[in-house]
Amino acid sequence: MSRPLWAKDLPLDEELHRFTVGADPETDLHLLASDAAGSAAHARMLGETGFLAEAEARALVGALAGLRQEALRGELVILPEEEDGHTALEHALERRLGETGRRIHLARSRNDQVATALRLHMRDRALDLGAAMHAAARAFLDLAEREEATPLPGFTHLRKAMPATWGMWAAAFAEGLLEELEALPALWGRLDRCPLGAAAGFGAPVAVDRGLSASLLGFSRVQNSPMDVMNSRGRYEQALAAWVVSAAGTLEKALWDLNLYSTEAFGFVALPDAFTTGSSLMPQKRNPDALELARARCRELRGLAGLLGHLAGGLPSSYHRDHQLLKAPFVELLDKGEELFRITSRLLPGLKVDREACAGAITQELHAAARACRLAAEGQPFRDAYGQVAREIQDGTFRPESAVPVRLGLERTAESLASSASWIKERRAFLKTTYEQLFAWGAQ
Amino acid sequence: MSRPLWAKDLPLDEELHRFTVGADPETDLHLLASDAAGSAAHARMLGETGFLAEAEARALVGALAGLRQEALRGELVILPEEEDGHTALEHALERRLGETGRRIHLARSRNDQVATALRLHMRDRALDLGAAMHAAARAFLDLAEREEATPLPGFTHLRKAMPATWGMWAAAFAEGLLEELEALPALWGRLDRCPLGAAAGFGAPVAVDRGLSASLLGFSRVQNSPMDVMNSRGRYEQALAAWVVSAAGTLEKALWDLNLYSTEAFGFVALPDAFTTGSSLMPQKRNPDALELARARCRELRGLAGLLGHLAGGLPSSYHRDHQLLKAPFVELLDKGEELFRITSRLLPGLKVDREACAGAITQELHAAARACRLAAEGQPFRDAYGQVAREIQDGTFRPESAVPVRLGLERTAESLASSASWIKERRAFLKTTYEQLFAWGAQ
Amino acid sequence: MSRPLWAKDLPLDEELHRFTVGADPETDLHLLASDAAGSAAHARMLGETGFLAEAEARALVGALAGLRQEALRGELVILPEEEDGHTALEHALERRLGETGRRIHLARSRNDQVATALRLHMRDRALDLGAAMHAAARAFLDLAEREEATPLPGFTHLRKAMPATWGMWAAAFAEGLLEELEALPALWGRLDRCPLGAAAGFGAPVAVDRGLSASLLGFSRVQNSPMDVMNSRGRYEQALAAWVVSAAGTLEKALWDLNLYSTEAFGFVALPDAFTTGSSLMPQKRNPDALELARARCRELRGLAGLLGHLAGGLPSSYHRDHQLLKAPFVELLDKGEELFRITSRLLPGLKVDREACAGAITQELHAAARACRLAAEGQPFRDAYGQVAREIQDGTFRPESAVPVRLGLERTAESLASSASWIKERRAFLKTTYEQLFAWGAQ
Amino acid sequence: MSRPLWAKDLPLDEELHRFTVGADPETDLHLLASDAAGSAAHARMLGETGFLAEAEARALVGALAGLRQEALRGELVILPEEEDGHTALEHALERRLGETGRRIHLARSRNDQVATALRLHMRDRALDLGAAMHAAARAFLDLAEREEATPLPGFTHLRKAMPATWGMWAAAFAEGLLEELEALPALWGRLDRCPLGAAAGFGAPVAVDRGLSASLLGFSRVQNSPMDVMNSRGRYEQALAAWVVSAAGTLEKALWDLNLYSTEAFGFVALPDAFTTGSSLMPQKRNPDALELARARCRELRGLAGLLGHLAGGLPSSYHRDHQLLKAPFVELLDKGEELFRITSRLLPGLKVDREACAGAITQELHAAARACRLAAEGQPFRDAYGQVAREIQDGTFRPESAVPVRLGLERTAESLASSASWIKERRAFLKTTYEQLFAWGAQ
Repeated sequence: MSRPLWAKDLPLDEELHRFTVGADPETDLHLLASDAAGSAAHARMLGETGFLAEAEARALVGALAGLRQEALRGELVILPEEEDGHTALEHALERRLGETGRRIHLARSRNDQVATALRLHMRDRALDLGAAMHAAARAFLDLAEREEATPLPGFTHLRKAMPATWGMWAAAFAEGLLEELEALPALWGRLDRCPLGAAAGFGAPVAVDRGLSASLLGFSRVQNSPMDVMNSRGRYEQALAAWVVSAAGTLEKALWDLNLYSTEAFGFVALPDAFTTGSSLMPQKRNPDALELARARCRELRGLAGLLGHLAGGLPSSYHRDHQLLKAPFVELLDKGEELFRITSRLLPGLKVDREACAGAITQELHAAARACRLAAEGQPFRDAYGQVAREIQDGTFRPESAVPVRLGLERTAESLASSASWIKERRAFLKTTYEQLFAWGAQ
Repeated sequence: MSRPLWAKDLPLDEELHRFTVGADPETDLHLLASDAAGSAAHARMLGETGFLAEAEARALVGALAGLRQEALRGELVILPEEEDGHTALEHALERRLGETGRRIHLARSRNDQVATALRLHMRDRALDLGAAMHAAARAFLDLAEREEATPLPGFTHLRKAMPATWGMWAAAFAEGLLEELEALPALWGRLDRCPLGAAAGFGAPVAVDRGLSASLLGFSRVQNSPMDVMNSRGRYEQALAAWVVSAAGTLEKALWDLNLYSTEAFGFVALPDAFTTGSSLMPQKRNPDALELARARCRELRGLAGLLGHLAGGLPSSYHRDHQLLKAPFVELLDKGEELFRITSRLLPGLKVDREACAGAITQELHAAARACRLAAEGQPFRDAYGQVAREIQDGTFRPESAVPVRLGLERTAESLASSASWIKERRAFLKTTYEQLFAWGAQ
Repeated sequence: MSRPLWAKDLPLDEELHRFTVGADPETDLHLLASDAAGSAAHARMLGETGFLAEAEARALVGALAGLRQEALRGELVILPEEEDGHTALEHALERRLGETGRRIHLARSRNDQVATALRLHMRDRALDLGAAMHAAARAFLDLAEREEATPLPGFTHLRKAMPATWGMWAAAFAEGLLEELEALPALWGRLDRCPLGAAAGFGAPVAVDRGLSASLLGFSRVQNSPMDVMNSRGRYEQALAAWVVSAAGTLEKALWDLNLYSTEAFGFVALPDAFTTGSSLMPQKRNPDALELARARCRELRGLAGLLGHLAGGLPSSYHRDHQLLKAPFVELLDKGEELFRITSRLLPGLKVDREACAGAITQELHAAARACRLAAEGQPFRDAYGQVAREIQDGTFRPESAVPVRLGLERTAESLASSASWIKERRAFLKTTYEQLFAWGAQ
Repeated sequence: MSRPLWAKDLPLDEELHRFTVGADPETDLHLLASDAAGSAAHARMLGETGFLAEAEARALVGALAGLRQEALRGELVILPEEEDGHTALEHALERRLGETGRRIHLARSRNDQVATALRLHMRDRALDLGAAMHAAARAFLDLAEREEATPLPGFTHLRKAMPATWGMWAAAFAEGLLEELEALPALWGRLDRCPLGAAAGFGAPVAVDRGLSASLLGFSRVQNSPMDVMNSRGRYEQALAAWVVSAAGTLEKALWDLNLYSTEAFGFVALPDAFTTGSSLMPQKRNPDALELARARCRELRGLAGLLGHLAGGLPSSYHRDHQLLKAPFVELLDKGEELFRITSRLLPGLKVDREACAGAITQELHAAARACRLAAEGQPFRDAYGQVAREIQDGTFRPESAVPVRLGLERTAESLASSASWIKERRAFLKTTYEQLFAWGAQ
């Protein structure tokens, strides 16, 4: 990403080229496949509405189908002198189709082209991230089922508070992540607006059919205001980032807990060997490196979201080149978020709970609230019952009482998770079909 | 908020008291009415399930009805020695009902009490904010209708780009804010989980009826995992903050534009007199202070959301006192966001567009893209047409051509806005009825 | 800070007034004394250079001397209709001196007046913060001296690593804070530029003597460029914030450690009773609330610094009303930072170290690195010695060896701390003398 | 940086390897040369104190001299399976020296090794950044000299305020950057503490000579507390980041101004052609892309500093693997900051000021403050003079008066800049000599 130290004192044009191009040649690799699809919809729309001869439009769509496959396989490259993926794609079209390739930019601008590629990318990645969150949530639920009744002290303020179970612990994170999965359809709804046809933010000067472009790409509606299309650069990025950060914020607590619970001091759980590493100096040590990196990743995602906020804000309406800088940290945030959820779902199955140590840590006084509640249920004002139990503890007469168990509702959570997974699967199938139909129109 | 400079060298207990109490006595004033409602639901549930005698429960609900009204009128105070609003409320109950007042804390903890008060507050405030966003969106739409066809140069990179209109400009912001309003029901869906009954995060030791508490408060479901209730401190705050910040991010662009368009250099619009102020040194000046403060407010909201992120993150699961610090900036963010939207909706009607200046700024070359597109639509590859127009401009032979006008779709936006407004109104009516029914059970 | 919920639907002028005034009437209370000093220097300079009659200038300085004392005692108030402290001060002058009071604003602007008051405030507060940091550092050093040789396991990755001591632990924080204290003179050097006379950012139109104003206020130089004076709004705020945040970042680690070490699981130390509180539900609990709030305060400071960054950035040169919003969070950050350092210095003396528990936690294998190093010092390649010790641990033949003790150098740290304390004391004495001399010129 | 989309479903060990290695193989390329130097000092210290045979120590230093040169030329690579640069360096030593290479890790840990490499890197980069800031400051000063008296309206609130000059404008930024240069020696002072010998944070188990290591590396002192060495991971990174961000914050204002002043609406200045680019849709356009990217870079740096804050905070004392994630954004921030200052220094010489347009924009009323001040200097209370001038403007009787010109003091700024440049040059020479002497000891 960064210029090597040994490349100083460049001539002005080269330094400026590096500066303006920035991370695009690398970042845009993530967007090429989406750009091919967006461009194909544009070409086909031009063909179906008579702005391009049908044969030419079919040729463009056909060529773009091939380029999309190359991009998906990681074979399409962006040369530094091409500056970005959109130029690379246009060059590739020109190489394959000659003058026809030079026709595609009619009635669009780099601005709506980029907005469209990004929107398509976001749609795909939202599903990827949802799938990875689902896997993590499912792994927590598996743990909850496996250790449903295994005792675990419940802590508040990191002090022992009341009896709990590993089932309760793991179910909490399954439910927390489920909440994020249930937020996905609405997030999808935000993304489900087609920017194509906004051109430079003031509409195309000729009468394009934006509704057609939108439906070819599987959008249920057009993002109507062309100026809002430009104003929304950064808006969707931040919406996705907020979602990822929220899920990571829940996960962070689990990772912190596991870090603590696997210390010698707590000793409640052992991490799978693959997730620990040794020390360079101390022969006896096993360190929970992967766990710590995952925990730090949660803060990193928060920081990357903050970076997006800095980049997106502070500007008048419409397009400014400042927006370019949004792309790299956005792509980074999505990739790093997905990796976090995936690593978590692979970590959890290997945890080895030390049931004896956990049970031993549930000392008598953790039942104090239960006794106070029972006394209150029998008629004492709660504040008085509380005082009585405190005195009993102090003078050693306290005897533990058991509480009503919390209903974990694991089956219900399992059903809700399955339903979220189905939704993601359906959306993926829908997109697959949409792209097949879009490209089927192209000349072979 | 901050300790005055002249209050140094306090005795330890006083300094510690100030430190631990912090901003609570002031912040909790925002939460008292919600806490009264949450407490009433808890008391009524205890009464209906037999944990409290019905008469006592009805007395508690009746007293809380009165306290809620006092809180809504701003008459309920929190003494510094009471530390927070929850203690103040319990004290008030005890003053009114004696021993009965001491019974209410059965089977709940300060933790779920606070979570419930906050959730109820968030629900109310989400509607307030939605209403304020709606008013701002509607004001943009009014402007769009009023100046629908008034010319305005379209800028990209702050350079003149293509012809646009004030209608197009204002409609962009109406649509941008509409998108946020359309995101409100899903946000509401997130909030629509009742935390009451989670106690300290491990459930109540006695068999309370969480479903009943939830429905008494108008929630459609229980937030099942008690540990997730604790883990979600900060999560909903951030979800609301992200929503407000997103809307403010759209607004920021309009405010920046108006700041620029009202400079002497642009001269497109004059601000209403009430929104400008004079200089202390320069007798000739009128400064757009309110506009600048509103613009800065957008960055401030972003910063406050960042502050919430710092406070919410970096902790193991369950409750930690750290969470207390979330309250003040959260309440501040909501209030400041609402004020921003309201100020904007009051600013827009007074704008005086200088139609002549705007029209004059649409110089010939803004039509270059239109001509290039027309040439391309007639058969030239777009890249060639683009080159030809560039040469025409250079050699002075360029003649402007008009473009297809962008369809603003103001009626459709108006309908969508009205539909969002209805949704908010219905929710408000629903909450009103819910609270009336909750408190109707109370003894007079 | 925030508008109460029950104050909706205000008339436009009142809502606008609230919006533009914002937190100023409260925030400016922190700046009034400094503004009185800055204004006195300005008046005296005008008198000494002949722009004001000497008698009038002396009368102004005399009245400002009184107002400064009132401000320091917290008796000077700012009425809401006065909007800010600067207007309040000018009104007070007018009330006392009639027409003479109306003369003071000659050749200055609100802009350099505010910049001057802020700079003076920063100078004072930098010393206050330095003193509070020193107290905290000294309290760590006291602890290091008290428990110099008390064993404590050294942790990396929160896993037991090598033997350490409480002396080593506490000395680390004394040194970390000392580093911040040693950074104070350079920070002071940044602040040591007088902005007075920059007027609105383009200099005063008449030939004021900026050097005289500067020296009357104890600055060693003038901030020469008037435009840079305006550009530096936010710059010094951020420099101070970065310093406070850096010190808090070091402290945060100590607070986290103490939180962990005082859990039942670690059990190394007990907190003073005054620093813990009970639970509302669980009669047996003592929670480390003050410690948690202090830990959260560290993140809060980081978030407030981030907020300042958002507010200060994103603007063209010169003054914009946006800058007003910098004041409240800046003042808040300084106060909250000072409180954090003070609370810490009061917490540390009460810690009760459980020496037995600490010693018991230093298990055999913590000496593994020592043995590996000894073997290597005797000739084995370190990587081979490391392997041998690992095998010894595995097969149970490992025997601990003691390491060379770390030299804590407590005396040297004590000397350096004393030297920093002296520097602060001298600066305070210098400022006291400076203000006395400034105001001595005033008419009684 | 990010995993390609087409590389899903990796086996666990490979995914974990990617996750734990992260960006290190790329990031550590920046640190290899510094690590070679730090390792050489360690080896030589071991040799001079008898822990290693002198011949072996000399062999190690000699091999490291060669590896450092390779690293500086960008020829030393880090294989993915080596995970990081430190392992790569140790491997390279082993390849060259066999068993001798395996001896170097005696009495050090990866922790102090990394801390040392980072500290050395920071020292170098602080000077690079200082040099780049100096070049930018000097370019502003050149502009100030070139256009010293060229009129330019002075703006506050983006409204015309008082007469100013391009000289005043450019000098403001030269002075603002000078302030950062003057902060560099103190920043250097912070960095000037040698972490080597802290081992894993609890000191080396054998009696190494930390003072010798420090002086071999050109440090004037040892960072005494080994635990503070670990606690300071992130602290110096943030100190450097705060410095870069502060300078960028000043620059941002200049970049914003130039963006505005080069619009058609202001028309005060034209950008050099190389700094503008065309539009993909609009043939007539020239866009100030490089200027916008530089402006956005300032916000990006702020965001990266915020990311560092998130990563550095929220942890107990000592080392945690979380710290690894600090490296990549830190290196990125330094590189991007340096590029920003360099680009700015190359942009400024090409600006073409439209002197006529600028002069024409200084309209009569900009002299109002001057007249009010003159009237006040003649005896009217300023508030009355202000009112009189306001009335004159309103009734058309106002006649402009000229103000006392602001003294720019360009020579003095030039001298201070030169002095800062000398300081940087001397430090660089000192480091060069230090490294030469360190490596001269090595066997050829």
